[in-house]
Amino acid sequence: MISADTLMQLAIDAAKQGITRGQSPFGCAIAIGERVITATHNHVLAHTDITAHAEIHALRLACKEENSIFLENAHVAATCEPCPMCMAALHWARVDTVYYGASISDAEKAGFNELNVPAQQLLQLGNSPVKLIKNIRQEDCKALFTEWRHNTPMPY
Amino acid sequence: MISADTLMQLAIDAAKQGITRGQSPFGCAIAIGERVITATHNHVLAHTDITAHAEIHALRLACKEENSIFLENAHVAATCEPCPMCMAALHWARVDTVYYGASISDAEKAGFNELNVPAQQLLQLGNSPVKLIKNIRQEDCKALFTEWRHNTPMPY
Repeated sequence: MISADTLMQLAIDAAKQGITRGQSPFGCAIAIGERVITATHNHVLAHTDITAHAEIHALRLACKEENSIFLENAHVAATCEPCPMCMAALHWARVDTVYYGASISDAEKAGFNELNVPAQQLLQLGNSPVKLIKNIRQEDCKALFTEWRHNTPMPY
Repeated sequence: MISADTLMQLAIDAAKQGITRGQSPFGCAIAIGERVITATHNHVLAHTDITAHAEIHALRLACKEENSIFLENAHVAATCEPCPMCMAALHWARVDTVYYGASISDAEKAGFNELNVPAQQLLQLGNSPVKLIKNIRQEDCKALFTEWRHNTPMPY
């Protein structure tokens, strides 16, 4: 199985690509076993779609790729703790494990307006079986916010 | 401004159309003032996209239609209480008010596997300003589940 650190590197690389394209600094990668299905970044501005957070966009791509609405056994790396929209979507997709780097609190400190509901709390409230593992490459993920700010004249 | 009942009728009509197309029995309509922007149904199976709940699909269409990621002043009717994915997405879109008919509990009784986090609880936890109004055409919305079951040989 691909390691959490390796999968997160793909998510970080995707987020960096998004930054160069003027997108928000969030990335997500999805794998099943050793097989990487997708690695992509937030497309909210690119697609004029408020729902196109990195995780949602990655799930859409992965569903198409697998020709399935369920991604059982999938491992997911998100550069930032999933918001409730993304965490619930990952639950609906029945993924096995979600790794994340930066926290919602880190994103808030970087100026992002967050729905401050911890992903773990949402899973517990909803009695979800999805496993959630925090602090994977956290500093590298937090550095995306700095990189984004240096590349974005008008914070958005 | 369009009334809650009228907007919900559009969501119900969209859900009925979805049922005839073999989709899950959920509809959503979005208006700004008197202007209806979109009315659509769940497209999860049609698009092989686990994220394409009625509300998410409606938000995507509305963002495209308005050429904006924000839908301030929008009123939204959802035939069923939004799940955390959809409720958070509606928050991100900055809609003004969300009406819903059937409850998550009604959906569970109809056999749908739900993330049992009440939409109002999510809004409170996240300190969201979105206004949420329940019990709009609740019986008509619950009847969609029965209609769907009669039209769907294999419950899904």
